[in-house]
Amino acid sequence: MRFSKFLCPTLREDPSEAETASHRLMLRGGMIRQVASGIYTLLPLGLRVIRKVETIVREEMSRAGAQEVFMPAVLPAELWKESGRWDVMGKELLRIKDRNEREFCFGPTHEEIITDLVRREIRSYRDLPRNFFQIQTKFRDEVRPRFGLMRCREFTMKDAYSFDINEEGAKASYDQMYEAYHRIFSRCGLRFSVVDADSGNIGGSQSQEFMVLADSGEDEIIRCPGCGYSANSEKADGVISKIPEAKMPNQMEKRETPGKSTVSDVASFLEVPEGRLIKTLIYKTDTMYLAVLLPGDREVNEIKLKSALQAQHLGLASAQEIQELTGGPLGFSGPVGLKIEKGKIERILVDGLIEKDESYVVGANEKDVHLVGVVAGKDFSMQEVLDLHRTREGDQCVKCQAVLQSDRGIEVGHIFRLGTKYSEIMQATFSDPKGELKPSIMGCYGIGIGRTAAAAIEQNHDARGVIFPPSLAPFDVAVIPVQVTNEDLKREGERLYALLADSGLDVLLDDREESAGAKFKDLDLMGIPGKITVGKKGLAQGKVEVKMRWQEESQFIDPSELVDWVRSIPQAWDTRSSKVA
Amino acid sequence: MRFSKFLCPTLREDPSEAETASHRLMLRGGMIRQVASGIYTLLPLGLRVIRKVETIVREEMSRAGAQEVFMPAVLPAELWKESGRWDVMGKELLRIKDRNEREFCFGPTHEEIITDLVRREIRSYRDLPRNFFQIQTKFRDEVRPRFGLMRCREFTMKDAYSFDINEEGAKASYDQMYEAYHRIFSRCGLRFSVVDADSGNIGGSQSQEFMVLADSGEDEIIRCPGCGYSANSEKADGVISKIPEAKMPNQMEKRETPGKSTVSDVASFLEVPEGRLIKTLIYKTDTMYLAVLLPGDREVNEIKLKSALQAQHLGLASAQEIQELTGGPLGFSGPVGLKIEKGKIERILVDGLIEKDESYVVGANEKDVHLVGVVAGKDFSMQEVLDLHRTREGDQCVKCQAVLQSDRGIEVGHIFRLGTKYSEIMQATFSDPKGELKPSIMGCYGIGIGRTAAAAIEQNHDARGVIFPPSLAPFDVAVIPVQVTNEDLKREGERLYALLADSGLDVLLDDREESAGAKFKDLDLMGIPGKITVGKKGLAQGKVEVKMRWQEESQFIDPSELVDWVRSIPQAWDTRSSKVA
Repeated sequence: MRFSKFLCPTLREDPSEAETASHRLMLRGGMIRQVASGIYTLLPLGLRVIRKVETIVREEMSRAGAQEVFMPAVLPAELWKESGRWDVMGKELLRIKDRNEREFCFGPTHEEIITDLVRREIRSYRDLPRNFFQIQTKFRDEVRPRFGLMRCREFTMKDAYSFDINEEGAKASYDQMYEAYHRIFSRCGLRFSVVDADSGNIGGSQSQEFMVLADSGEDEIIRCPGCGYSANSEKADGVISKIPEAKMPNQMEKRETPGKSTVSDVASFLEVPEGRLIKTLIYKTDTMYLAVLLPGDREVNEIKLKSALQAQHLGLASAQEIQELTGGPLGFSGPVGLKIEKGKIERILVDGLIEKDESYVVGANEKDVHLVGVVAGKDFSMQEVLDLHRTREGDQCVKCQAVLQSDRGIEVGHIFRLGTKYSEIMQATFSDPKGELKPSIMGCYGIGIGRTAAAAIEQNHDARGVIFPPSLAPFDVAVIPVQVTNEDLKREGERLYALLADSGLDVLLDDREESAGAKFKDLDLMGIPGKITVGKKGLAQGKVEVKMRWQEESQFIDPSELVDWVRSIPQAWDTRSSKVA
Repeated sequence: MRFSKFLCPTLREDPSEAETASHRLMLRGGMIRQVASGIYTLLPLGLRVIRKVETIVREEMSRAGAQEVFMPAVLPAELWKESGRWDVMGKELLRIKDRNEREFCFGPTHEEIITDLVRREIRSYRDLPRNFFQIQTKFRDEVRPRFGLMRCREFTMKDAYSFDINEEGAKASYDQMYEAYHRIFSRCGLRFSVVDADSGNIGGSQSQEFMVLADSGEDEIIRCPGCGYSANSEKADGVISKIPEAKMPNQMEKRETPGKSTVSDVASFLEVPEGRLIKTLIYKTDTMYLAVLLPGDREVNEIKLKSALQAQHLGLASAQEIQELTGGPLGFSGPVGLKIEKGKIERILVDGLIEKDESYVVGANEKDVHLVGVVAGKDFSMQEVLDLHRTREGDQCVKCQAVLQSDRGIEVGHIFRLGTKYSEIMQATFSDPKGELKPSIMGCYGIGIGRTAAAAIEQNHDARGVIFPPSLAPFDVAVIPVQVTNEDLKREGERLYALLADSGLDVLLDDREESAGAKFKDLDLMGIPGKITVGKKGLAQGKVEVKMRWQEESQFIDPSELVDWVRSIPQAWDTRSSKVA
């Protein structure tokens, strides 16, 4: 490819809207342009990277025995109603009506469609197991699209769906995908970690996320240096050694706490550690109000709470609702004397970190008043105790008691054991050897294609731009005549370009009439692994000046070694000493 | 690929909903399945064919210097409003509102999006010409989706857009695409014809369609055997030698025509040829009513009419409207005495086939009455004479007077000279060498990917199934052990499978426990060009039994010749004697 013919509008300045490295560098490097919020055009350079990811994914999925299909983007509502997800998905599902007012959606995932296909076409245990995948455009109408290709609304995803006759087979299919994903992200040159995850509205009994480690990651990963346990903090379990000591009266007493409505204000005013306060949060779901109690220094894990309640929607009650339900204002709620009543607060859920028979401070459901010396299980009920807090760095591992650590990660893949969630409700059955009809055991497996490319940039860049892992690079190598007005340099550039292209390499010839400095800046920004500078010095010596993107110094090599030098770049990448973050 | 692991649900019976060969055979051959009206899933076999088409298209577009990009499917309404097409597109445009009630559509074509990109990123004549293409999913909400992939609502299209600094350059870009399209459809093994076409709501000054010739084609092609002129009948021009003779009174006279409201009834009742009647059709557009006059034996070309009127919507007036506008009932309208009045009939358009000073029969705007001996230009006005009839077989060529013929065709490609339609209204300008801003001269170029595959099947099938052109075939060759329970045959099948696959060929091994007859039926249905039968006879002789899909008889060849035999299939296809339709 000749740069003079190639649309790659690099930018000198950082675009103000870009908060993360990948977003900034994909804009500056001329890879993407926004069309609407969370909706992008891939320019030629960006598309080349995306295609590299797609090719790796396609090869490894095929190698793992999955068959490629292509399901539509516009999906009929009936199938989503059959699975029950038409109502569950909320506003994230982009709903559409056609010219005849029939309901459709732009597919955010395809469980229903593949299950419908399989129930029609696969009838016997002899035709199982099967695994189908596609690489297709999805749409999720995110509340807050951001970070470029990292969290956009329209995006390319590889999704796969396995169907097995029993749990053992389903586990084997899942493990095959686990292995395939390992190979995929390794081939993409990424440093990643696999963590236990919440299954969200996809459902199923177990799921794991493939997380690319990066400070800019939106997810928090909890991991145990002792036993290797790791999980998304939404999902992670942990324990704490003991609750903090505190002086507390033997009997429940009222205390004036004028204007003190936050945990930290109350704790310092009453001279009690925050862990000895109990936060009482009033939530509402689609069907009821409830109170959630947890130590003052912890956060509610709303994913766990929602899943424990099997609620579709969950949110905090308003100040007015709290006043009506508890009799006291926001900030002074507490469990003592809280009535359980149909239509008012119907359940009181207590987090497992609150210890029975220990004394706590709670709100008195009265303005400017708290209760101290409140004994858990005596002064308020502990009938429903659940794990409701978010595990955090410093907690202890449930398996080995080591102190947990935390990292930031970017979710690039997610694999699920679905069980019979879809096959049962949609009657995707097969006949077993005895002729009995049984629902298939399913798994599903997703990879965000654009997000994988973006994550590679998050992990691999420096102040000058992207440093693409060679397997994802848009070009293997760039040839840069420092002056195209110099006929000798121009001719030599053309010669090397032809030589490399004829060897089957992806080459960019920077034949633009720009200064050498401007060209070097652009090429560094674009992250092309190999750089061949065609200058007077090299030409005079009969040598070629070469440099890999992550190296500091050029070297001069013999022209006969040039093709081998380009071919050696991937190995050099794998063994490079100065890994960049 | 092993058939035992491959999802290819062939059907024994013709599906009742399939009207055309390609629709029937793609369903029966296990290539596609319908998800909703006009919306399909591509199964593994169908996807392989589609990918072959895509690869040919991608290679030829790149060879012609076009750069691949990937624009989104969900497009913001603002850009469509800017071009004015938001209102013009009607119900065919699938309109969507996102969670914030912002308007979008599922892109049916991308002129607006690419023009927006180019106006932002390309500013100078130095960066032109450019041609960008993509292969992307489109949606057009057709009134009547049918014929499988031939006229569906969601479909894959290759679209390309060229930008030039002047007409000469734009013509060169157009010609390059013309050549590329020739190569693409030739490589796809299609017999096709290029015809002049109407530009519809895409617009521009000139367009041509690439038509695959097939009896099932939805389009009628008019062509001249004399000079080679050919055009879609929507667009075609033609002349007739003379109007038919008829006895007619010298003066206009009323005639009773009780209950005779159709052309044929009136003609036979009055014993006048249909060509001596004038049909008076009352149309309405967005803004007015109008009358259209043309010979009784011709049809209105509504495409020409709509374009002459520059109307967005066009339809016939209702019986009640006709009564109010003309004073007479439907079937008895005529131009004599018809008033031109604001809010009522505002224009009378006369087709060019109606000859001034000749006598005709017309409706009298009165129940059961016609007028005979009506002289055109004397008894009614001929102020607006236009070409409004549909040209048909038997008319004469406007260029060489030869008698025109007609064919049926399937439009697989359409290329347009857009001029400045989009660049002017959307201000996609570049600065010329003098620094003046000028709008780019554009072209656009589309290929229906799925329709191309379907058209290949329309042209290439027999009673047993598809006969894929080798360039589009899902597999190069199938290896069929006639009995997999026979260890020798099974082993030999595996050996040949490995041998061919290792040679880089796409091989299907039919390792299913089915009868030889059932396997042969399936393979013939699927249209795989090469068939290798592994049976006892060949094995005993040390020979391999081979047959190409379009040959009647097998032959036995030496195993050492096998790979060459498979590689010779494409040439054999090109020179085969019995071309099938």
